Amino acid sequence: MATIFCINGPNLNLLGKRQPAIYGTETLADVEARLQRTADERGHALRCRQSNREYEIIDWIHEAREAAEAILINPGAFSHTSVAILDALNAFEGCVFEVHISNIHKREEFRHHSFVSGRAEGVIAGFGTKGYDFALLRAVELIEANAKG
Amino acid sequence: MATIFCINGPNLNLLGKRQPAIYGTETLADVEARLQRTADERGHALRCRQSNREYEIIDWIHEAREAAEAILINPGAFSHTSVAILDALNAFEGCVFEVHISNIHKREEFRHHSFVSGRAEGVIAGFGTKGYDFALLRAVELIEANAKG
Amino acid sequence: MATIFCINGPNLNLLGKRQPAIYGTETLADVEARLQRTADERGHALRCRQSNREYEIIDWIHEAREAAEAILINPGAFSHTSVAILDALNAFEGCVFEVHISNIHKREEFRHHSFVSGRAEGVIAGFGTKGYDFALLRAVELIEANAKG
Amino acid sequence: MATIFCINGPNLNLLGKRQPAIYGTETLADVEARLQRTADERGHALRCRQSNREYEIIDWIHEAREAAEAILINPGAFSHTSVAILDALNAFEGCVFEVHISNIHKREEFRHHSFVSGRAEGVIAGFGTKGYDFALLRAVELIEANAKG
Amino acid sequence: MATIFCINGPNLNLLGKRQPAIYGTETLADVEARLQRTADERGHALRCRQSNREYEIIDWIHEAREAAEAILINPGAFSHTSVAILDALNAFEGCVFEVHISNIHKREEFRHHSFVSGRAEGVIAGFGTKGYDFALLRAVELIEANAKG
Amino acid sequence: MATIFCINGPNLNLLGKRQPAIYGTETLADVEARLQRTADERGHALRCRQSNREYEIIDWIHEAREAAEAILINPGAFSHTSVAILDALNAFEGCVFEVHISNIHKREEFRHHSFVSGRAEGVIAGFGTKGYDFALLRAVELIEANAKG
Amino acid sequence: MATIFCINGPNLNLLGKRQPAIYGTETLADVEARLQRTADERGHALRCRQSNREYEIIDWIHEAREAAEAILINPGAFSHTSVAILDALNAFEGCVFEVHISNIHKREEFRHHSFVSGRAEGVIAGFGTKGYDFALLRAVELIEANAKG
Amino acid sequence: MATIFCINGPNLNLLGKRQPAIYGTETLADVEARLQRTADERGHALRCRQSNREYEIIDWIHEAREAAEAILINPGAFSHTSVAILDALNAFEGCVFEVHISNIHKREEFRHHSFVSGRAEGVIAGFGTKGYDFALLRAVELIEANAKG
Amino acid sequence: MATIFCINGPNLNLLGKRQPAIYGTETLADVEARLQRTADERGHALRCRQSNREYEIIDWIHEAREAAEAILINPGAFSHTSVAILDALNAFEGCVFEVHISNIHKREEFRHHSFVSGRAEGVIAGFGTKGYDFALLRAVELIEANAKG
Amino acid sequence: MATIFCINGPNLNLLGKRQPAIYGTETLADVEARLQRTADERGHALRCRQSNREYEIIDWIHEAREAAEAILINPGAFSHTSVAILDALNAFEGCVFEVHISNIHKREEFRHHSFVSGRAEGVIAGFGTKGYDFALLRAVELIEANAKG
Amino acid sequence: MATIFCINGPNLNLLGKRQPAIYGTETLADVEARLQRTADERGHALRCRQSNREYEIIDWIHEAREAAEAILINPGAFSHTSVAILDALNAFEGCVFEVHISNIHKREEFRHHSFVSGRAEGVIAGFGTKGYDFALLRAVELIEANAKG
Amino acid sequence: MATIFCINGPNLNLLGKRQPAIYGTETLADVEARLQRTADERGHALRCRQSNREYEIIDWIHEAREAAEAILINPGAFSHTSVAILDALNAFEGCVFEVHISNIHKREEFRHHSFVSGRAEGVIAGFGTKGYDFALLRAVELIEANAKG
Repeated sequence: MATIFCINGPNLNLLGKRQPAIYGTETLADVEARLQRTADERGHALRCRQSNREYEIIDWIHEAREAAEAILINPGAFSHTSVAILDALNAFEGCVFEVHISNIHKREEFRHHSFVSGRAEGVIAGFGTKGYDFALLRAVELIEANAKG
Repeated sequence: MATIFCINGPNLNLLGKRQPAIYGTETLADVEARLQRTADERGHALRCRQSNREYEIIDWIHEAREAAEAILINPGAFSHTSVAILDALNAFEGCVFEVHISNIHKREEFRHHSFVSGRAEGVIAGFGTKGYDFALLRAVELIEANAKG
Repeated sequence: MATIFCINGPNLNLLGKRQPAIYGTETLADVEARLQRTADERGHALRCRQSNREYEIIDWIHEAREAAEAILINPGAFSHTSVAILDALNAFEGCVFEVHISNIHKREEFRHHSFVSGRAEGVIAGFGTKGYDFALLRAVELIEANAKG
Repeated sequence: MATIFCINGPNLNLLGKRQPAIYGTETLADVEARLQRTADERGHALRCRQSNREYEIIDWIHEAREAAEAILINPGAFSHTSVAILDALNAFEGCVFEVHISNIHKREEFRHHSFVSGRAEGVIAGFGTKGYDFALLRAVELIEANAKG
Repeated sequence: MATIFCINGPNLNLLGKRQPAIYGTETLADVEARLQRTADERGHALRCRQSNREYEIIDWIHEAREAAEAILINPGAFSHTSVAILDALNAFEGCVFEVHISNIHKREEFRHHSFVSGRAEGVIAGFGTKGYDFALLRAVELIEANAKG
Repeated sequence: MATIFCINGPNLNLLGKRQPAIYGTETLADVEARLQRTADERGHALRCRQSNREYEIIDWIHEAREAAEAILINPGAFSHTSVAILDALNAFEGCVFEVHISNIHKREEFRHHSFVSGRAEGVIAGFGTKGYDFALLRAVELIEANAKG
Repeated sequence: MATIFCINGPNLNLLGKRQPAIYGTETLADVEARLQRTADERGHALRCRQSNREYEIIDWIHEAREAAEAILINPGAFSHTSVAILDALNAFEGCVFEVHISNIHKREEFRHHSFVSGRAEGVIAGFGTKGYDFALLRAVELIEANAKG
Repeated sequence: MATIFCINGPNLNLLGKRQPAIYGTETLADVEARLQRTADERGHALRCRQSNREYEIIDWIHEAREAAEAILINPGAFSHTSVAILDALNAFEGCVFEVHISNIHKREEFRHHSFVSGRAEGVIAGFGTKGYDFALLRAVELIEANAKG
Repeated sequence: MATIFCINGPNLNLLGKRQPAIYGTETLADVEARLQRTADERGHALRCRQSNREYEIIDWIHEAREAAEAILINPGAFSHTSVAILDALNAFEGCVFEVHISNIHKREEFRHHSFVSGRAEGVIAGFGTKGYDFALLRAVELIEANAKG
Repeated sequence: MATIFCINGPNLNLLGKRQPAIYGTETLADVEARLQRTADERGHALRCRQSNREYEIIDWIHEAREAAEAILINPGAFSHTSVAILDALNAFEGCVFEVHISNIHKREEFRHHSFVSGRAEGVIAGFGTKGYDFALLRAVELIEANAKG
Repeated sequence: MATIFCINGPNLNLLGKRQPAIYGTETLADVEARLQRTADERGHALRCRQSNREYEIIDWIHEAREAAEAILINPGAFSHTSVAILDALNAFEGCVFEVHISNIHKREEFRHHSFVSGRAEGVIAGFGTKGYDFALLRAVELIEANAKG
Repeated sequence: MATIFCINGPNLNLLGKRQPAIYGTETLADVEARLQRTADERGHALRCRQSNREYEIIDWIHEAREAAEAILINPGAFSHTSVAILDALNAFEGCVFEVHISNIHKREEFRHHSFVSGRAEGVIAGFGTKGYDFALLRAVELIEANAKG
């Protein structure tokens, strides 16, 4: 049984509360509950957290060094500005998947670059909250392959 | 029942034949067969094609205008250079998902930009061939949601 | 009666304490008291806060979504680096005014761009602390016009 | 009693005549009359002029060297292209305030840079025509402070 | 009957007088006479003017707001430097065609960009003075279509 | 009697079939028929072709070296990416006119540059399909002038 | 006997009146008188003019096409922004010398490029008003050499 | 006796715990203890702190304004992104030394620029943890020199 | 006995037919025949092909994966635009030599960069058609050295 | 009596020997002799030297620190590449004039920037060898003014 | 009989002495001896020199103006930085071939540009020391062709 | 006992002689003597040299290949321009420390990049001449650690 961290960055606490006509009424809690069920079914532990605080995200990644085999991360706006989160991820030895709910390539130019992408195993954007599910499935697949391998 | 096109661009015919230690021994035919089974189970038609020819890819996208509800596309190297494929996709009214087997953000700078990304609903990179499966699932989900409306 | 938030970013707690020969001896508390009086006279509520913490600023903007009609913000150095604050402001539906005490266009090149400017209704720089007063008056004017309108 | 120049650049003669649904029906003459009243009340002279001619603006700034203590200027499109106006302002020793009715940071990239901004004491944009009032008040404040010494 | 303005910018008064071996001996007056005949035949009014003065061009465009349905403009060197002319054209609601006698893409890099092009309905370059005729025909066609439409 | 080639690049086969509200219901065949009539009237041969294949366009330009006095070309998306078409045109000794139906200067930045423009005698954009007619007339004019000249 | 034009651009009418401690008390009239004496001694006609108006400078250069063998020009701020003056100079067939009183390379980056420099025979900057004298001497020398040659 | 602050930024809490084969087994506590001994021997007070929180670093620098004569700072990843830390240092009047354990010039391009470097008296990179010792010695030297005056 | 492919890209079929005064009358067939003789003498097989079709070049490189020890390639205009050819070459394990008949560094800026150069063992430009001979000799030398081991 | 150094950089020893049709038959020795006569007449010492060696030029500038009041320098190609010569000039306290025989603004882009220009009092280019004479006259003028001043 | 200079720049004296596993044990003397034999066989004189001194390379190129018909040059690191060597080559009227032993396009970005390439007839890189042989053969070929021609 | 080279580049011979108020009266000889004493105490040989000649610096680095375990280098202005010195250092197998007396990050933009920094083990700037001492101590430490190994 592996442990996987799912970390969401700034403003994602507003999910489902902001512009429901566009983003739907699904909240981050809803998404996390769904991911939790998937993890349970696959026999792995999942720990979900959200923060608007860069340092908490760094601290959680540090914690993951001992406690987790994989990190799913949606760094939100920190994707484009935080070298510190990249450095924390560089100090983590498990696999990393970067998730963006919307397709960042359709937005302003400054959102096209993410410091995390060069560190991640995979990047998924514009799949809605389904991106988390797919990242989780892929992480489980890799972990189980490594476990066998 | 919807029809979905899965289009692979140049050099992807080599999948599974090149550097098996790295890319595995799974060929494009293997991937396509797996996707076909998923589509069948979900009650949708899937048509898979690969070409090293930019014009064939354009022609298939034109064909999709009448024949398909969604396109899964891994434009390979054409991602970075083909405005013509972008224009063809702009003339297509269904949804589009862009897939890259490897994480293009870990490679040379000129691979970080894809003309297709700004047109696609979603982009997935670095999930191995699993990216196709996830793109297919997401496309099916959107199509069925639209059908329900 | 509307509520207006006045948010000051990092290092602005030093106002009036640093280089008084240049910046005068007026502290942030002095400025806030003056703004408070103006708001009172106009029959509106004003809530002033300062933080060196990006997350607190984000949280306050989130709070404003329910609690305020307008935000006056001097993001200080975060103007030039924080996409997360921009995203929080994007989730706020009231009007936004950006204030800089000094004229940022006379300073280093990297201070000429602010992520907030493209979101704000108005930007004022180099008017000293008077910029807050003018931003407040303008916000009140807009709020009252909307109330009538 | 000080004299203040208020100079408006090209196309501002159309104010209130163009797209009234957006810009309102207030003309430049209306704005100038309102500013005039404020100046009168404060006991200062205000001279307002508009020109589509770069050379007239230069000549007025030269004239201001002898005749005025402050210049309020909305250089319009010349903001982005005229080094000659900047040079004229460099030869003027009073204070300068730059006004833009709309928020230039929300418009095309080439409107984000103004040659005048690096010379001005303060810059105000996106406050509608209220920006002129605030610039006038600030100019008066500075002039009176200097007069007291 | 519609009215169309044909505006030529700086140095175009030299047409036919400079380097006749290259540019031919046709003067601007010759071109304008030919355009006038075409307009007459089509039953429209054409008013042709040339100026080396940016402000006159701006004033004429302002005048066109009341007086013309279309503007044909060869802004000459102002194409590359005048935001003020662009702004004047933005305040004009008819259609705009940009004409360059020579092919500006064969000349120095700084001549490849024109501020006017993004505002114009169409741009024609390198068709010699024939470009004016074609722009006139196209403007007439659009005006008549709108009249019917 | 001269021969003129009219070459259309990728996606132009969709003309009149895509978004008729915007582009009208005129197909490429309609345009070509109209051009053919004009050429007939002027006593010249016109050969029209369209391809989504870069190599066919290159081959046709090579063919034109022996067979044509002028080329009208709308390279579509290849305008922005194909040095090979430019090279083929460099090997052609007749005159070249570049046509774009829409005004490419109103679209994405990457559409503002065309490799062909620096080789063409003239460039016309945003005149709708009328641009082909004008290019044809200009080509005929030049050919006849050369024949006399 | 040749005729030489000496043209000064915007803000140079202030010479000697602005910051005399730095620029000295020599006015433009003083400089022009000195140049006149030199021209007289050498048996040539010199016509000196200054304008803050771009169009007057263009008109004078046009006039020089018939009337002068050489132009000495200090375009002031227009150096950096006026393609129209460059075009006028391109239509002039005599020799051109560009003069800057101060060393523009010691000033802001945007002053380092002059459109005129690529057209001029010679450029002199930072020699104070002596630059005009040297430019005049050089122009005379070239004219006399050509006259002989 | 002077007081010196030694501030370490994000991820430096991992020193000695991550990749010991490369970075050695020396922890930040070890380094701080060694620096403490040196400070003691030299008769000065040293206060060492580390934080992953940008705001704590800002607060400590503010605290140093009253409490310290010098700051040794390794801003870690914040070097490349934090204008707020630069502003805090700008408000500090003592001397500043920037330390990087590894040679940042051998790493990714985005690590080559540090906002702090332009404010610091000295910068040392790639000397391992010895860089702190040298920065301390240099700070002491300057403080003692200033004390002597 | 090794097999070597010699691949020529678009427009090279015109060699010797275009501008013979400059390029000589030697055709591609002549060059290929000469290379064939050299290969024969050295006891190796040479297969020469030319195409204006990017996909054929890709297909031949794929074919070379099984069939050849080295590729000599003059990608012509594709050098500057084709990532797909680079990818095909990346999948080839033999050695690669890039040939340009003219010196591309003397031509337009966009011809100075070739995607292939970073993959090739060697690059030769401006040696006329002799470049192929030298590339062939070098390839043979390397193959024979590897064979000896 | 002041001493002035005249320093010429690499390749200037070829003056008058290379392309006499263009550069004339005047050698560097001729120019230096003429300058010497002028210096003699004005009662100043002139020492002329040329070197292709960057270090000799540096050494001569160092020597000038004790021995000269002014330096006339034509750094030739070193203008564009040598920071070391700039540093040497920065250590010299007299005045510096930079001379270029041809107009560097008419040549390749990389010749438009000179490291020396930002240090020089004045720059003269395109006046032929006359530029040295004018620089000498100006240097003498400044020296004599300083001597009086 | 023609004379050819072969000039090697800085650090090439280390050839064969540094990293023999990579560069082989062949020294520059070995290469020069081999080239000498080839030249002898062809009946031409070859003079080989190496220097770490930019000025010696310049002087040799000057010497070649009288003494040689062709120059083979490997400028080493000076390729990327020396405009002075380019200028010397510009003053040489024979043909020039640029040789790089390794493929500079596989190395750091700053090695991709060589000032010499735009002057050379041909450039060869990544052919090992064989590049000199090929450059020599090509130079002989051109010289003999010119002698006949 | 190891040998260490200390190499100083251009203009550093002026140390202590130029602007003593700023740089102090300590000469390079003083610094070298102090370093010599330290080396003696530590039982190592130190050889100090300074040159304004790039080639001498290259030659000394070549010499160091046989003769030294470490190089301390202050390349002065060559830091920013000399690829040749970088190449020489690349051929040296010992450790390298780069020293700048002043903080180059406080100076002109072109001084912020040093070709040497990417090769050096460590870089120290703005520590005054103390930077040499610290670099020496660090080099000794590394050499002794390697010796123990």
